[in-house]
Amino acid sequence: MNVVCIGSGNVATHMAQAFKSSGAVILQVWSKHQAQALALASKVAATAISDLELIDQSADLYLILVKDSAIPEIAESLKSVKGLVVHTSGATDIRTLSSIRNHGVLYPLQTFSKAKAIDFAEVPLFLEANGESAMNFLRSAAASISSLIYEVDSEKRRILHLSAVFACNFVNQLYALSQDLLEHHGLEFDTLKPLIMETALKVQSAVPKEVQTGPAIRGDEQTMNHHLALLNDMPELAEIYRTLSNSIKKTHS
Amino acid sequence: MNVVCIGSGNVATHMAQAFKSSGAVILQVWSKHQAQALALASKVAATAISDLELIDQSADLYLILVKDSAIPEIAESLKSVKGLVVHTSGATDIRTLSSIRNHGVLYPLQTFSKAKAIDFAEVPLFLEANGESAMNFLRSAAASISSLIYEVDSEKRRILHLSAVFACNFVNQLYALSQDLLEHHGLEFDTLKPLIMETALKVQSAVPKEVQTGPAIRGDEQTMNHHLALLNDMPELAEIYRTLSNSIKKTHS
Repeated sequence: MNVVCIGSGNVATHMAQAFKSSGAVILQVWSKHQAQALALASKVAATAISDLELIDQSADLYLILVKDSAIPEIAESLKSVKGLVVHTSGATDIRTLSSIRNHGVLYPLQTFSKAKAIDFAEVPLFLEANGESAMNFLRSAAASISSLIYEVDSEKRRILHLSAVFACNFVNQLYALSQDLLEHHGLEFDTLKPLIMETALKVQSAVPKEVQTGPAIRGDEQTMNHHLALLNDMPELAEIYRTLSNSIKKTHS
Repeated sequence: MNVVCIGSGNVATHMAQAFKSSGAVILQVWSKHQAQALALASKVAATAISDLELIDQSADLYLILVKDSAIPEIAESLKSVKGLVVHTSGATDIRTLSSIRNHGVLYPLQTFSKAKAIDFAEVPLFLEANGESAMNFLRSAAASISSLIYEVDSEKRRILHLSAVFACNFVNQLYALSQDLLEHHGLEFDTLKPLIMETALKVQSAVPKEVQTGPAIRGDEQTMNHHLALLNDMPELAEIYRTLSNSIKKTHS
């Protein structure tokens, strides 16, 4: 399978390497930033290009791995290719690619950092395609890099993307606020790390609601009032404390 | 070292077993619920009691592992013991035990479930004691069950406890809300589990602020508006979405 990789960010880096490891040939890596195209191209033995007009028209699979707002422009430049063109965005409708003969979506539900390796075989992939032959090809391409394959339409994919904002972006913000709070009082974030791991580990096998602990679920108003008093000089944290404590109470009422 | 364990909940179960494994003798397990006292006592080869007057007066260490509001009553019944009496609460001042000659605090910063084993050696323990000899004894007792030992006063311990509410209880609530959202749309929480693990793993070596992703940090108002529209029939989630998105924007402004 010959692949063209359009984009060179975090997702592009991990997905291009996963395809390369599965035995695919990465023909080209495109980025409007030539240095970034070169950096990724060298990792996957591809040619770096920074002009969309130089894209190889004969590839089997085109991976669009750019930010959401840039997808329409990329799609425009791939209108005449025969291979399958997929974007990888959780929030973008498949119809954004409707001017392309064979098109689809390959959405990885995971957070990627360039610096951190990830086992792509355990990244859930959500597929959509315009027609059966496109889906058959996409399914086999996806199965070559991951064992967690699902088929969902654009509407459900948007819900998955939104749930990931809660379970990843918002969770990470709570980690950041915890760090602010600790450092504000001369304490170190390091001491929270085992708790953070255990909290995530616990819900791998338990239902989150059933393992909730802390003052809000106990209805321990005295401790909650103490906590709010401690947040007197951090009004933003106090607001989040109130909002999420109320949410816990409501979930368990 | 002879230990009396007062309480039989999640923390009591894990801490009593950790002391037992370190070579300590657990003399007694007290609980006002006899069946619970028996269940834990049988795990650590101790005698189960449900009457505070039966507590052995000659132990080296008394662990108070009951809910915060019950600590004063327990303390009252231990007034005349010579051994070290510690409570294990993040939110309770050391002075709650001031009527006892040798007293202190042994606060484990971790979330415990009875059903899930935990490596106690990696549970951070925060110590406080009334005087040097009490602290020396507490330090060596704590070092027998964990390699992560810190000394903090009651004020700092309260901040640690509060930070744990953000990084554990509130994070778990976000997991619960993600599950609600997915199931509301016929999707499964299982698909989020790899993302949840990776999000927690990432901050073991990176600063949370520096690995934030998603629409709020990108200032992607279009995606955020789409998300809020998707939450039209879940106003509680919409409020949390707004509050935490604003917090991310503020952190990164």
